[in-house]
Amino acid sequence: MVTSRWAADAAPTATPRRRGAVLERAILDAALEQLSTVGWNGLTMEGVAAGAQTGKAAVYRRWPSKEDLVADALRAGLPRFDEVPDLGNVREDLLELCRRAREAMFSLPGSALRSVIHECDTRQAERFHAVIFEGVVEPTIDLLRKVITRGIERGEVRADAVNGYVLDAIPAMMMYRSKMCGCEWFDRDLEEMIDQLMVPLLRPGG
Amino acid sequence: MVTSRWAADAAPTATPRRRGAVLERAILDAALEQLSTVGWNGLTMEGVAAGAQTGKAAVYRRWPSKEDLVADALRAGLPRFDEVPDLGNVREDLLELCRRAREAMFSLPGSALRSVIHECDTRQAERFHAVIFEGVVEPTIDLLRKVITRGIERGEVRADAVNGYVLDAIPAMMMYRSKMCGCEWFDRDLEEMIDQLMVPLLRPGG
Repeated sequence: MVTSRWAADAAPTATPRRRGAVLERAILDAALEQLSTVGWNGLTMEGVAAGAQTGKAAVYRRWPSKEDLVADALRAGLPRFDEVPDLGNVREDLLELCRRAREAMFSLPGSALRSVIHECDTRQAERFHAVIFEGVVEPTIDLLRKVITRGIERGEVRADAVNGYVLDAIPAMMMYRSKMCGCEWFDRDLEEMIDQLMVPLLRPGG
Repeated sequence: MVTSRWAADAAPTATPRRRGAVLERAILDAALEQLSTVGWNGLTMEGVAAGAQTGKAAVYRRWPSKEDLVADALRAGLPRFDEVPDLGNVREDLLELCRRAREAMFSLPGSALRSVIHECDTRQAERFHAVIFEGVVEPTIDLLRKVITRGIERGEVRADAVNGYVLDAIPAMMMYRSKMCGCEWFDRDLEEMIDQLMVPLLRPGG
């Protein structure tokens, strides 16, 4: 094969022909990019193909619909939540979980996920329910449960603190304030949330 | 004027010509209706005109854009939050506030407001920031502050409980669960939230 330097200069955006997993990864990344910039409503298969520097047919060959593509993109891109922090006390453990949640929230897949949650109507949202719950909500709640249970064992936390409302308190507040006031959850905000909301909510006695 | 019974039968959907405040009210109601059925993204000036059984020109004459129309529709339709409940203890007062919040949330204007909050991107949302904050968020927080302050005066609530995270706890949880799990906030759910989240959060001592 003859490589022409002239041809390469003339088409600076051309990428080598990619196949299989490499092309698939590029398409999934482009879908996340689109979601976090133009949102669920703005995302088109054409836009994703352009972002991945491929043709629309290459996208449709793998994913028959926007819903299928986005579900796979979220599944592939979301970070895993499985390591329980162990910093010696419940306050520090919760802060560490919050810092990880913030990192995930403002990552490309996290911002894509938020646009899906906020923009999808109920019917569309059902399509993503499993991705969102199995991929994010349940693992997060599971880590919170472990951290709070360890706090109970240490005597730092009241014995009846493990319930749905306590476990949802941090996810609910983080979503609410980021949506309603554009809160970016700086370290100071996270500390205030833990000290004003979680510490009094969990303390024993009373 | 001669009223023809035949003419009335022949055009059963025709409405009498409305002007001024009556037509305006019909257009604003149609905008809320559209928001709560097709959402912010689905709302069109044409759809609103059709819903109000008037022409597009009648809508554009009063509101140059979809944003202006929706801001006015929300302003006119949202219920007022200004009466502080006084049922003798903080638990009952909070429950009463929650019941009113639920009623507002699932009313036509409330459902319209939620579609605006969820679907609008940051730039569009700024347009509605004042409507949402001055019309809903601040009055709600103000009632919660009054109920909790009265609880402190009664000795039911710890002295340092009035802060931003405590005041946001109920609005955050109600928005989070209605969005994430389609929670409809039956009386039993509201009671569980108050007993598992707010009572331990507010209790003195510890």
